[in-house]
Amino acid sequence: MPTKSLEVRLASRPQGEPTLDNFSFATVDLPDPEPGEVLVRNVCISVDPYMRGRMNEGKSYVPPFQIGQAMEGGAIGKVVVSRNEKLPAGTFVQSIYGWREAYVAPAASLKAVDTSVAPPSAYLGILGVTGLTAWVGLLQIARLKHGETVFVSGGAGAVGSAACQIAKMHGGKVLASASSEPKVAFLRDELKVDYAFNYRDGDPLDHLKKGAPDGIHIYFDNTGGPQLEAALAALRSYGRVALCGGIAGYNTPVPGPRNLMLAIGKRLRLEGFIVSDHVGEMPAFLAEAIPALKSGKLTHRESFVDGLEAAPAALLDLLHSGAANIGKMIVRLPE
Amino acid sequence: MPTKSLEVRLASRPQGEPTLDNFSFATVDLPDPEPGEVLVRNVCISVDPYMRGRMNEGKSYVPPFQIGQAMEGGAIGKVVVSRNEKLPAGTFVQSIYGWREAYVAPAASLKAVDTSVAPPSAYLGILGVTGLTAWVGLLQIARLKHGETVFVSGGAGAVGSAACQIAKMHGGKVLASASSEPKVAFLRDELKVDYAFNYRDGDPLDHLKKGAPDGIHIYFDNTGGPQLEAALAALRSYGRVALCGGIAGYNTPVPGPRNLMLAIGKRLRLEGFIVSDHVGEMPAFLAEAIPALKSGKLTHRESFVDGLEAAPAALLDLLHSGAANIGKMIVRLPE
Repeated sequence: MPTKSLEVRLASRPQGEPTLDNFSFATVDLPDPEPGEVLVRNVCISVDPYMRGRMNEGKSYVPPFQIGQAMEGGAIGKVVVSRNEKLPAGTFVQSIYGWREAYVAPAASLKAVDTSVAPPSAYLGILGVTGLTAWVGLLQIARLKHGETVFVSGGAGAVGSAACQIAKMHGGKVLASASSEPKVAFLRDELKVDYAFNYRDGDPLDHLKKGAPDGIHIYFDNTGGPQLEAALAALRSYGRVALCGGIAGYNTPVPGPRNLMLAIGKRLRLEGFIVSDHVGEMPAFLAEAIPALKSGKLTHRESFVDGLEAAPAALLDLLHSGAANIGKMIVRLPE
Repeated sequence: MPTKSLEVRLASRPQGEPTLDNFSFATVDLPDPEPGEVLVRNVCISVDPYMRGRMNEGKSYVPPFQIGQAMEGGAIGKVVVSRNEKLPAGTFVQSIYGWREAYVAPAASLKAVDTSVAPPSAYLGILGVTGLTAWVGLLQIARLKHGETVFVSGGAGAVGSAACQIAKMHGGKVLASASSEPKVAFLRDELKVDYAFNYRDGDPLDHLKKGAPDGIHIYFDNTGGPQLEAALAALRSYGRVALCGGIAGYNTPVPGPRNLMLAIGKRLRLEGFIVSDHVGEMPAFLAEAIPALKSGKLTHRESFVDGLEAAPAALLDLLHSGAANIGKMIVRLPE
């Protein structure tokens, strides 16, 4: 009897704001694993802002999702049938096969994760690409130095909350913004940032001036839009901007920063990056992150939704800066 | 009998577009030089786009001009009375005392220039801060490598025409834009750039696609505005932007680039710079530029106006991308 797997597919490309109609569900029969392959049942899957870009047609930095095919993305699963000795049944593995309950794949395309260190979901977040993104952006792109002041927009999101903590671990003073009061409370009370604010509450530049009267050295940009413009105004000479995400403009275009030319007089550097260029840094990052997580210096907040059926709504909520979305958004599947 | 000197002063700060009314003229009596000082009669003075910023109140990267005082800036003059043995009468010297016929100053504040190598005016342009700006922007900020494709906006201006030539000397393929047909002809016929276009003629991006079907590696930005937006679209992955000037927005605000977030997926780096941070590189630059100028590999085009009275109109013309303004704008004074 074949193994059945529910999967979430891209049904159509959104025009502007995506809706639930852009997704469809299908149940497929999985083949038996061939030699060298494993059958994996996912336990958690990742929901990320960058997925919005892949729903569009045309070239992004990752190829677009294909209509009628399952949404690709990070997932952690458990090997249930193994025909490869390196990944015996019971092993937890990371894949990029995305939004499906189960799959059969070559063992060589998967990476085992050590669940004695942290729960499986942490490998999608703080110990995964999410954490690495924050680490690379702060240390390699923006070249954070001890004692500098860092502003992180989208600070309560997955990458943002990692960036706030990593900046503090490296001696930074941290200002962070979010889109709701519960998120601001999370930044202030759990992440212990130095100044937290709701970017919808007044002018972001007023907050930056209040939180950093002498200006900021680094802006870790998850949003683009008005917060980027405010950051350009608040940056000190020789400031750096790590351009990581532009969620403000993912669904609808936003104006460009009218004050970009301040970069000349202030000798600012703005640099875009994507984490897939930096996967070679993962061991160096984990060497720092795993002990920090164990000792409690690094925390990881996750927002769970249950069942694959809930994945599309979770993505829409994320793109709306929904109140539910603090930290890493994870879809949890029954084991 | 005291020496008289005519000078051009800032009379008032412009609101938007500057006019001739923002300038005034005055004749002052110069003191006799004290020991260690020299009396210098200027032979040429520099007219530069960055002066527009200094006409405003408030902090720019250089202090604002003071109302009622002479416009500061680069000038080359000849020592006529010397009380310092290092700068005997007849020596040509460079100063930043600006728009005045003559001045008395400490010899230590001046720099002798070698007029056997090039005419005095060249030290305001291709062998001066203008040339250094282009060289630093291309080689140190944008890190031009042999074989790369470079787009220079404002290519017929002083810095732009230096950038076009230096890029070609370093093995670059050069696209350049200008604001009039005579300037485009200059780019094409005299500077021999690979593709020259009038940015007012159609969509700049169409020109960039035509001149560089595989995209550009570097954008040397003298303008900001729509050309920056077009360049962001045309840049290849890992492209670099040297933010040097924003003449498009000096008099009136222009919208920011709506597509700045392309910098993430394309891993672009945008970096602002000002040449005064890099004056230590002048010897290295001149070691390359002087032989190139002598051998004819580097040319310098100048636009002269005669007499200090003509200086304000020359600056206004420059800011209007006036047709007269090809290459370096110089005010020539009678010897």
